[in-house]
Amino acid sequence: MAVGTVLITGGTGYIGSFTTLALLDAGYDVVIVDSLYNSSKVAIDRIELLAGRRPDFYQVDITDEKALDEVFAKHPAIDSVIHFAALKAKSSIIPLEYYRVNVGGSIALLQSMTRHNVTNIVFSSSATVYGDATRFPDMIPIPEHCPIGPTNTYGRTKSMIEDVITDYVNAQRTNLEKEGKPFQQWNGALLRYFNPCGAHPSGIMGEDPQGVPFNLLPLLGQVATGQREKLLVFGEDYPSRDGTAIRDYIHVVDLARGHLEALNYLRSKQPGVKAWNLGSGRGSTVFEIIKAFSNVVGRDLKYEVVARRPGDVLDLTANPKLANEELQWKTELTMEKACEDLWRWVSNNPQGYRQEPPAELLAAIKKA
Amino acid sequence: MAVGTVLITGGTGYIGSFTTLALLDAGYDVVIVDSLYNSSKVAIDRIELLAGRRPDFYQVDITDEKALDEVFAKHPAIDSVIHFAALKAKSSIIPLEYYRVNVGGSIALLQSMTRHNVTNIVFSSSATVYGDATRFPDMIPIPEHCPIGPTNTYGRTKSMIEDVITDYVNAQRTNLEKEGKPFQQWNGALLRYFNPCGAHPSGIMGEDPQGVPFNLLPLLGQVATGQREKLLVFGEDYPSRDGTAIRDYIHVVDLARGHLEALNYLRSKQPGVKAWNLGSGRGSTVFEIIKAFSNVVGRDLKYEVVARRPGDVLDLTANPKLANEELQWKTELTMEKACEDLWRWVSNNPQGYRQEPPAELLAAIKKA
Repeated sequence: MAVGTVLITGGTGYIGSFTTLALLDAGYDVVIVDSLYNSSKVAIDRIELLAGRRPDFYQVDITDEKALDEVFAKHPAIDSVIHFAALKAKSSIIPLEYYRVNVGGSIALLQSMTRHNVTNIVFSSSATVYGDATRFPDMIPIPEHCPIGPTNTYGRTKSMIEDVITDYVNAQRTNLEKEGKPFQQWNGALLRYFNPCGAHPSGIMGEDPQGVPFNLLPLLGQVATGQREKLLVFGEDYPSRDGTAIRDYIHVVDLARGHLEALNYLRSKQPGVKAWNLGSGRGSTVFEIIKAFSNVVGRDLKYEVVARRPGDVLDLTANPKLANEELQWKTELTMEKACEDLWRWVSNNPQGYRQEPPAELLAAIKKA
Repeated sequence: MAVGTVLITGGTGYIGSFTTLALLDAGYDVVIVDSLYNSSKVAIDRIELLAGRRPDFYQVDITDEKALDEVFAKHPAIDSVIHFAALKAKSSIIPLEYYRVNVGGSIALLQSMTRHNVTNIVFSSSATVYGDATRFPDMIPIPEHCPIGPTNTYGRTKSMIEDVITDYVNAQRTNLEKEGKPFQQWNGALLRYFNPCGAHPSGIMGEDPQGVPFNLLPLLGQVATGQREKLLVFGEDYPSRDGTAIRDYIHVVDLARGHLEALNYLRSKQPGVKAWNLGSGRGSTVFEIIKAFSNVVGRDLKYEVVARRPGDVLDLTANPKLANEELQWKTELTMEKACEDLWRWVSNNPQGYRQEPPAELLAAIKKA
């Protein structure tokens, strides 16, 4: 008998697939909806290999309320949603599409949830909602009460969805109170995560970006596998210990566990809306990441320092105290471990999910 | 030959109807779309009486992209949009509906505009996007660079739509530049207005709120006509000259002219996105408004002081310098004139558009 049944939107994506795995391992049943716009159904096969059971899957666009309704109707056991589905690249070029899919899709999801009495939502927000926290004295590492001020469209869609969920959950709780109905209370978790990285230690599941990746570690991975000539380092004139920008890298396995803990908290404590940072609290510079990943690969990786990118900030490091205390969650895997796991993933699967993993990795999983 | 053709969404509402009239008077052709959810088609008859010609009208919900497409297709002369259509009451009770209609509807409108090469949008924003500007030193009267921080759902929808328009206009201009296409450039005006009030001096056109009005002057109007026993004054312990809260009241006829000037500016200067405050720059307290309106009515109006409302702020007065200079627009009608015109409207039309105006008022218009 399952602990509960959870709908995961965007469940075949990078963080979505690891969260699906974490939930299955914890005894939840999982139903995935995903448009496959920027992900692969192969992720589900890998999840099944690792978890020993398969999540349900529907190819559904998050803006399609009718299709969402059908999924909820077919799975009346669903009691919670973890919401990842969103566009995440090119937001400056096609902002209207971002607002339509990310914000409009979230509204559609909440409406469909309402019709099916599903009242817990864990939302995949982002540290980008803080924008440049270095504007404020004493806001590094960043606590949840740091003023919100995203500096790009992607961050603005995340911040808007936080507002929509907050206002809606609060209104639903107030309305129910007025009507004298104690339950079901709406609850929402806003998970602001920092720089997810790493892969599954088995080497068969990891990030599989379509086109050019835009995060540091996947780009470094491509340099290491020879798919990219060199890494561009944007600025070495920041006031940091080595001149490069500081980020808080969090292993995707830790991050997935954070989603599980937030879900458990909503279901057991019924807290209304809560925002939690998911980060390690430790910042690494770009040069430190290059060094750590080069150590794992066993050779120097080529990079070139170029000018700062507009909009980039000096330091995005989390203060994860609230999640540490309330969720009893903290990161357990180091940035170095993330580099190891990433290297195992990209060196064995340079084409991501477009190729079968080496037989010895699969054999090791079956034996375990 | 018309100066241009403008689609006005929400054109039968309070400010929409006065803006329609101002545009017709200035030689524009106007096409109105309105759901009539919170307004009356009778407004169009009154506009026609005053302007001597009739705007086109379609009953269309702003979220219905297909219906919008049909209107644009039927009126290829449309070159600009003035966008009022939005929900504006009960946002704390039904926030999701607000986000769906106000934000989702604006996205739908921009998409439809794009398909029909209509690239100028004047957006009906609000001073509520500033939230409590008294948080900041030196931000009263409020300039456009005052940080945005709405304190309720209605304000958040307005702020989000400002962001959507800003990001989209900027992206469209950048994209066109990249593609080497100089025109047509997108342009957007974000008009943040303060407390619209007053009515048409003819006495046949004014605000016609459904249900209980929630602005000071319409409520006072109902006290004066005997439809309401007394006015509730929320707090007389503010640090103002008489203890009551300060607002910047702007005559709706001045406000409508502000929309016309913003539209002319977009069409002639192609400036990209600009935000302008539309206010008088003069603040009035609640007691000053009660006194001014009582003077016009010729007797004291009953009120009762009760506790402050949560979320209310001390002072919302505009710094209108930017609009004064760039649009060569400033308010010409005083708050006292707004009280006079409001009294002429409500005393002659206590049922708003649900009754015919007195014959002598109609006769005066025909003679003029």
